[in-house]
Amino acid sequence: MARVGIYGATGYTGIELIKLLSRHPEVEIGFATARSAAGQRLSEVFPILSDLRLTAVEEVDPATVDLVFTCLPHNTPDLIPIVQRALAAGARVVDFSDTFRISDPQVYAARRGKEHPAPELLAQAVYGLPELHRERIRQARLVANTGCYPLTAILPLVPLVRADLLADSTVIVDSKSGVSGAGRSLSLKTHFGETHETFSAYNVGRVHRHLAEMEQETGLHIIFAPHLLPVFRGILSTIYVNLKPGVDEATLAAVYADAYAAEPFVHVLPGGRLPELRHVQHTNHVVIGYQMVEPGRAILVAVIDNLVKGAAGQAVQNMNLLLGFAETVGLMG
Amino acid sequence: MARVGIYGATGYTGIELIKLLSRHPEVEIGFATARSAAGQRLSEVFPILSDLRLTAVEEVDPATVDLVFTCLPHNTPDLIPIVQRALAAGARVVDFSDTFRISDPQVYAARRGKEHPAPELLAQAVYGLPELHRERIRQARLVANTGCYPLTAILPLVPLVRADLLADSTVIVDSKSGVSGAGRSLSLKTHFGETHETFSAYNVGRVHRHLAEMEQETGLHIIFAPHLLPVFRGILSTIYVNLKPGVDEATLAAVYADAYAAEPFVHVLPGGRLPELRHVQHTNHVVIGYQMVEPGRAILVAVIDNLVKGAAGQAVQNMNLLLGFAETVGLMG
Amino acid sequence: MARVGIYGATGYTGIELIKLLSRHPEVEIGFATARSAAGQRLSEVFPILSDLRLTAVEEVDPATVDLVFTCLPHNTPDLIPIVQRALAAGARVVDFSDTFRISDPQVYAARRGKEHPAPELLAQAVYGLPELHRERIRQARLVANTGCYPLTAILPLVPLVRADLLADSTVIVDSKSGVSGAGRSLSLKTHFGETHETFSAYNVGRVHRHLAEMEQETGLHIIFAPHLLPVFRGILSTIYVNLKPGVDEATLAAVYADAYAAEPFVHVLPGGRLPELRHVQHTNHVVIGYQMVEPGRAILVAVIDNLVKGAAGQAVQNMNLLLGFAETVGLMG
Amino acid sequence: MARVGIYGATGYTGIELIKLLSRHPEVEIGFATARSAAGQRLSEVFPILSDLRLTAVEEVDPATVDLVFTCLPHNTPDLIPIVQRALAAGARVVDFSDTFRISDPQVYAARRGKEHPAPELLAQAVYGLPELHRERIRQARLVANTGCYPLTAILPLVPLVRADLLADSTVIVDSKSGVSGAGRSLSLKTHFGETHETFSAYNVGRVHRHLAEMEQETGLHIIFAPHLLPVFRGILSTIYVNLKPGVDEATLAAVYADAYAAEPFVHVLPGGRLPELRHVQHTNHVVIGYQMVEPGRAILVAVIDNLVKGAAGQAVQNMNLLLGFAETVGLMG
Repeated sequence: MARVGIYGATGYTGIELIKLLSRHPEVEIGFATARSAAGQRLSEVFPILSDLRLTAVEEVDPATVDLVFTCLPHNTPDLIPIVQRALAAGARVVDFSDTFRISDPQVYAARRGKEHPAPELLAQAVYGLPELHRERIRQARLVANTGCYPLTAILPLVPLVRADLLADSTVIVDSKSGVSGAGRSLSLKTHFGETHETFSAYNVGRVHRHLAEMEQETGLHIIFAPHLLPVFRGILSTIYVNLKPGVDEATLAAVYADAYAAEPFVHVLPGGRLPELRHVQHTNHVVIGYQMVEPGRAILVAVIDNLVKGAAGQAVQNMNLLLGFAETVGLMG
Repeated sequence: MARVGIYGATGYTGIELIKLLSRHPEVEIGFATARSAAGQRLSEVFPILSDLRLTAVEEVDPATVDLVFTCLPHNTPDLIPIVQRALAAGARVVDFSDTFRISDPQVYAARRGKEHPAPELLAQAVYGLPELHRERIRQARLVANTGCYPLTAILPLVPLVRADLLADSTVIVDSKSGVSGAGRSLSLKTHFGETHETFSAYNVGRVHRHLAEMEQETGLHIIFAPHLLPVFRGILSTIYVNLKPGVDEATLAAVYADAYAAEPFVHVLPGGRLPELRHVQHTNHVVIGYQMVEPGRAILVAVIDNLVKGAAGQAVQNMNLLLGFAETVGLMG
Repeated sequence: MARVGIYGATGYTGIELIKLLSRHPEVEIGFATARSAAGQRLSEVFPILSDLRLTAVEEVDPATVDLVFTCLPHNTPDLIPIVQRALAAGARVVDFSDTFRISDPQVYAARRGKEHPAPELLAQAVYGLPELHRERIRQARLVANTGCYPLTAILPLVPLVRADLLADSTVIVDSKSGVSGAGRSLSLKTHFGETHETFSAYNVGRVHRHLAEMEQETGLHIIFAPHLLPVFRGILSTIYVNLKPGVDEATLAAVYADAYAAEPFVHVLPGGRLPELRHVQHTNHVVIGYQMVEPGRAILVAVIDNLVKGAAGQAVQNMNLLLGFAETVGLMG
Repeated sequence: MARVGIYGATGYTGIELIKLLSRHPEVEIGFATARSAAGQRLSEVFPILSDLRLTAVEEVDPATVDLVFTCLPHNTPDLIPIVQRALAAGARVVDFSDTFRISDPQVYAARRGKEHPAPELLAQAVYGLPELHRERIRQARLVANTGCYPLTAILPLVPLVRADLLADSTVIVDSKSGVSGAGRSLSLKTHFGETHETFSAYNVGRVHRHLAEMEQETGLHIIFAPHLLPVFRGILSTIYVNLKPGVDEATLAAVYADAYAAEPFVHVLPGGRLPELRHVQHTNHVVIGYQMVEPGRAILVAVIDNLVKGAAGQAVQNMNLLLGFAETVGLMG
């Protein structure tokens, strides 16, 4: 039985992670931290959870666990020392933030407008997408869970890039996300009355922090427009690609089968059939569909649950690789 | 053409009021105040509205208008001086808060645990429910718009009380409200992720501030349990009453016809047919249904749109009475 | 007071039309037909409506009205004789279906795979988009209300086409519609459990019946992917355009101001600010936003309420033109 | 490894059951039947599921499995022969319908207005509520899964009945259910446009088929008003009880602790704290809250996920008892 620690247990991804771990047969939770809820029991925050007492960050010792999950808000100044301390104590780290996803510190600096706060950690971090970097993750000590949006662009696009099927290196990614991606902090953008029964685009253009990840992993130039859906969980991305002459649905079918037939969490539908959010909500699965629109043009659609495959489930999948368990343990069904 | 002023134009009820007034043929908006949005144009806050510039409270002069609407948050300390100044300037006042609804200052003190802040204003305020107090409203200078929940209990119950049909003076009111009733201020309770696709009871028991209004207008003892629906607008109340022997659906039909057949905004369905929120959303109408469950027991159901009949629409209806217009102007359809 | 007749009064667009007409000061409803509800009163179908008795198509005489609205399901065989009879009786016709929108019978035949059923009617029909064809509508006897999706592509694109700003005649339109667009007929696609809290693309590609309208009015080649939002009303389209060198947000601002500054129902936001569905739901307004993504590429976003500006409101706007009323009567607020 | 068969695999409860079984370590699915989807693979119906081929009822042999689940629509004439054949073949049966829940055939006849179709089966059926009938379920061959609504009334009320705390044997149960309870068959009631963003009561009164179950298990006289929530899954019931003099929250706390402290799936909150649907959605848990409203009156609130604890999860819990597994296997988290 391995032991894990959770930093930031009471956000949406933290609660999701605890639910997933509670059905994982190989691990137990050694500690879980929270800021405002420190001192309370988990069951006081969410009734069906255990009576584990939430603690302050200062009280926990990462040396008592095999692995820590850092589910802290983006830009928390605490993050770097927490990660350093955990690694020094011999624990593996799966980080949920966008701090360690861009491997090139110069790209990071260009995109964020500031130097990376810990280049020595960045140098050892592995981009935590098992479908692309499984072997490197197994050897890693620090894994950067991917962004939720990027996953839905990277997985459908990479096989087409590798097979050299794209006629144009610029690709349009029109993404639609549920509100849970914005977290549990209060803002007018996530106030019920401003989000419910409506729909909008936001942060359109080249400045979105997820764009760099997509371009890093695909090598493409991406035009990215995220939208906010009035649902709690799930991302669907519609991707418009120009294909080289002669590429048709049969070509795409073969390329995707080659890439993903053996992947336990990636499902590719037959040509012309497109996935829906409800197919993957509350699961760690990705479903990809594709359809030719006219010769030379296709639409790709990918769906995930942003809280599971886009966050807590992916983290458990990475933990399974890091701790030597079967990759799918605790994640099926 | 009458002129009106609006204090608190950018909350949900303020925006709703402005939309209603913009289709009212007899009035124009003289001023509209806002706190954080002062200086902006209405169209910057909500694109389809006019270019009227929002002003700070200090800048406006109530003497320039015939009537003011005070749509300020409950417990705003500004309210009393604003009302006093408007009345002194000769403007009528329709107030949206719960400050002037309980006519007896002793009941107010007992329910709120503090003395009323302006008993001399309270003495001249009229409870703003046209269906019960139409003539008094016409003569009033200060009208207290009713609470949204109370309306859904008072209108179905009062005819049964007046006709002496109830076998028990204790009545259970199980109410379900959309989230807009909680306003536009941020809180975890109205955060999308805590409200969407879920349902809960809240503030159950005798302490809810709306209970006193229900009891004042019906003379009954009410057991009241409000719930929060994952919809934006609308209240549905299910009311459980014990009836005197011999009262049946025909009795109820006759009593309701007598009470409401001439009311332009109150619709009573045939016995056994119950209303739905969608029947009244975005309208100033109330729909009431009733059904015998067994001899001596009936269920009453009433629905309103809390932002219209429960707030901005009722305010326009009161304005029509106060300014001598036909009561339904600007409110049909 | 003009009199109008409604064919198909109990679908979602029919009910919406009746609500709009009930607040229109210049018209009264002469008749309203329904199939399964014939014989019932409107108030039995929807409690707050009037007691007008619904009749069968066979019972009504279009000679008794000045104008008829035909809100019948697509492909109803009744449509052509109803339109012929109304025109013969001297009534103007506003048709909600897609029968008279494609002006060229050869294009119609190519897109639908069959000849047009009434080319002599098609020849006199005018495409019912007042913002583009106002004068022709005023003179028309048969107006084809536009499709709801096409409106959201045509209005943002036409000014750019006319000003010759586009670098590429192929344009991607990624549209998201509320479920009411699919009507009130039962289907698994519109079953609550298959549509609620999910999201999906559907009918992707060049076969969608709305594509021909977009291409007819813009002269562009459109790649169109419609999606189904878990909301009841509203369409938001995200449009990806390539612009000629030197075109920037200031150019777009000037072109849009020139095109739409005088339009009562079209609002263009400042560059970089994008509209949301809630801005237009329950109104006849269109709001358009635009944003440069990088030099030479912009995103346009347009929103409408598909039941109002995309159907019943547009029909009233067309009626106002046909009957000589001010264009905005009954549609503001 | 035990083998199970599923009759009716493609409804909402069938799909939920398959998802739960796919993460259960002790069972495998031997067969799954479907009507219109027979011949397809499960993954064609729902992409992330297995490639198990769906079969027609006629093709399957219950002798090949240890237990069958019958998830067929209410009133399917096939049900009785399927159950008879399964029992004859030695398989245990967990039935999802309301056919075997009322143990007294005379009560059944009185409530339904017809004789029970198979009294010899009824005589051996056990009401499948493990928290009340665990030992009898372990010995049973035919288990009647409970109704979803009744569970939310029975579990909060039975401890109060057993402790003799109620002052009145008539109890009001105001229940609110998500739409999935109405199944996947098409009807206007479950059409998106009639259910979304609205709320209504339905089937109010003493005729609801779930009432008999509540009264059978509690011995009380129940006034029951079910309502339809615009959410997919979950039931919340608000229960109004009159209590004997002296009963207070401490009494209730002690009685509930005594009843449920050892139950793995029943959680009772501290007095005055009430549960929400989101606490239990996608889980097999029940959460109960209670609050004194005034001396002698309390409100009880219970929440479940109707598809899990109210259907498929309860069925797995019953299967675990019938097949001798630990009761919670496959159901935690």
